[in-house]
Amino acid sequence: MSASRPVLALSGGVGGAKLALGLYRVLPADTLTIVANIGDDFEHLGLTVCPDLDTLLYTLSGEANPELGWGRRDETWTFMAALEKLGGESWFRLGDGDLATHVARTRRLTAGESLSAIMDDFRQRLGIAARLLPASDDKVRTRLDTDRGWLDFQDYFVRLRCEPVVHGFEFAGSETARPHPGFLAAVADPKLRAVIICPSNPFISIDPILAVPGVRQALRACHAPVIAVSPIIGGRAVKGPTAKMMKELGLPVDAAAVAQHYRDFLDIYIADETDRDVVAGLDLPVELAPTLMVIAEDREILARVVLAAADRARK
Amino acid sequence: MSASRPVLALSGGVGGAKLALGLYRVLPADTLTIVANIGDDFEHLGLTVCPDLDTLLYTLSGEANPELGWGRRDETWTFMAALEKLGGESWFRLGDGDLATHVARTRRLTAGESLSAIMDDFRQRLGIAARLLPASDDKVRTRLDTDRGWLDFQDYFVRLRCEPVVHGFEFAGSETARPHPGFLAAVADPKLRAVIICPSNPFISIDPILAVPGVRQALRACHAPVIAVSPIIGGRAVKGPTAKMMKELGLPVDAAAVAQHYRDFLDIYIADETDRDVVAGLDLPVELAPTLMVIAEDREILARVVLAAADRARK
Repeated sequence: MSASRPVLALSGGVGGAKLALGLYRVLPADTLTIVANIGDDFEHLGLTVCPDLDTLLYTLSGEANPELGWGRRDETWTFMAALEKLGGESWFRLGDGDLATHVARTRRLTAGESLSAIMDDFRQRLGIAARLLPASDDKVRTRLDTDRGWLDFQDYFVRLRCEPVVHGFEFAGSETARPHPGFLAAVADPKLRAVIICPSNPFISIDPILAVPGVRQALRACHAPVIAVSPIIGGRAVKGPTAKMMKELGLPVDAAAVAQHYRDFLDIYIADETDRDVVAGLDLPVELAPTLMVIAEDREILARVVLAAADRARK
Repeated sequence: MSASRPVLALSGGVGGAKLALGLYRVLPADTLTIVANIGDDFEHLGLTVCPDLDTLLYTLSGEANPELGWGRRDETWTFMAALEKLGGESWFRLGDGDLATHVARTRRLTAGESLSAIMDDFRQRLGIAARLLPASDDKVRTRLDTDRGWLDFQDYFVRLRCEPVVHGFEFAGSETARPHPGFLAAVADPKLRAVIICPSNPFISIDPILAVPGVRQALRACHAPVIAVSPIIGGRAVKGPTAKMMKELGLPVDAAAVAQHYRDFLDIYIADETDRDVVAGLDLPVELAPTLMVIAEDREILARVVLAAADRARK
C-alpha cells in the first residue's frame, strides 16, 4: 500500500513547515522524513542557532507560536530584556524557551555530537514521530550578493529586514559539505512514495539543500516522483522575500518561474488555482489546488492533494 | 575626611553581599571597591557562571531576588522548563534573566575580554557606582576533599546540597593566578580607610580570594585596619554550610574560630552581641554589634558600625 511507503519532504522554515505539518498529520507515523534547510544557521551570542530546523521542531511538536509565526508558544522574553540592559546584541530576538534549544544544541555540538544526532534526540524528546534531518552535518551558510555587498544570511534577513537588493547567492561550505547519509538513502529508497519540495523560498530555503554535493543528482535520478508546491500565489509570496528576490534577480514573479527553477529534477508541480493561466505553458504535469494554508485543515488538505498527485504520477 | 577615603570589601555571595550593600548605601559613591570570590565560578551548559560576582551585581543594582535569596527579581523560568524537555542538565537552576549575564559574559570572554573588564562594564550598565572586581582574572576554582572524594564546588554545593563531609579544600589554579591589579593597588593605597572581610564563609568564600598569590601578604602589610565580620552567630551560620564545615574540619563552631582563621592579617573583629563570651579570649580588638542582617536598615547599621570601628582603630 502506498500509505505505508516512505515520503521525503524538503523544507525551509515557516512556509514549508506548514505543509510538513500537514504531511505529518495525514501520513502514518514514521513514514515521513523531513530534510531541513541549514543555510539560515548561524552563530549568535556564542550559540549555534538553526532557525529552520527549530521551526520544524516546534511546528511538528505543537510548540510553535501561532501568533508570531516563528518561535515557541507560551514564550517569555526575560532573557532579551536582561541582555539589552547588559549591552548585549538584541537585533536577533531569542525567546527564553527557544534559548534552551540553542544552549543545549551548542553544548552538545561542542562535545562532539553531530547536528543530526542532536536534532534526532530533540525531536524524539518532543514526541515527533517523523524523522527530521539537517541537509548536512557540515556547515552550509547562505550568503547574499547585494547592493550593500556580500551579507551573511541573518544580517540580510533579520538585521536589514530583507531591504538590500539581491543579485545572487552563495552557500559557503557547500563545496565540501557531505549530504546527510539518511537523506541520500531516503532519495534512493526503492519504496519511496514521493519527494515533496515544500512551498519554501527556492533561493534561500531549497537551494542551500540542493547545493550540497550529490543532492541534485540524486533527485534527478530518483525513482519516485519529485513534486514541488509553489510558494508564489498570484504573483506574490505568501510570506517572506521570495517575490522581492525574483524581481531583483530579473525573473518573472510568478509560479511558473519557480517550477522552471526546479525543472531539471521536477516531475509534478502544484500551483494555486488562481495561477491556472500562469502555469499553463509549463512542459511538466501541473496540478492546481488551494495552496494558501491558513488554518490547520488547509495544511492537511494540501498534503493529501500532493500525495494523491504523487501516487497518480508513479514513474 | 575619612568619608571620602576608599574602602575595600572582600565578599562571597549572599551573606557577604548584604554587608556590601550596606557599605554601598552608607559610603559616598565610588569610594567602595568590592573584591568578589571567584572560587564558585564554573562552566555549565557551555556558559561561564560566576555566582558570587553576579549576586553582588544583582544585589547592588537592586536586581536581586528578595524571595529566593539568590538570582534576579521578576525572574522567569521558561528556559529551564524547555531545557528539561530537551534532556538538558537541570540540577543548576538558571533563570531566564540571569542567563543573559552568563551568555553575554561567555561571549565576551570567548572574544578575549577579561572577566574584570566585562564585570566592570556590566556594573556600570546596571548603574552601580562601586567598583566590583574578581579577585583574579585567572581561574581559581574551589574543590573539596570529602567523604565522597574530591568534588568540584558546585557539585558539592548545589548538586549534593552540601551533604558530603568535608575534610579540606583546594583552590585549583590559585598557584599561578595573578591577583587583579586593582585589588592589590587598593590594599596598598595609602589613603585606604579599611579592608572589610564580609560575613561570608571563610573556607569557600574568603579563602579562595586569600589563596591568590600575594593577597595574604598584602593584607598583612596593609596600612589600613583589616576588619572581619563574623558569619557565625551563637554557634550557627546565618546561611550556608559554614557551621557544618567547621564541625567537619574539627574546629570549634563559634565566632572566635573564624577570627583565628584570619588571625595573621586581622586587626579588628566584629562579632554578634550574643557572642560576647565566645570572643572574650581573643587577642585582638573585638567589637560587638547586631550582625544579623534581616532588613535593609540592618545592613546599613552594621556597615556604619564596621566603618566606625575602622576609623577608631586607624593604625
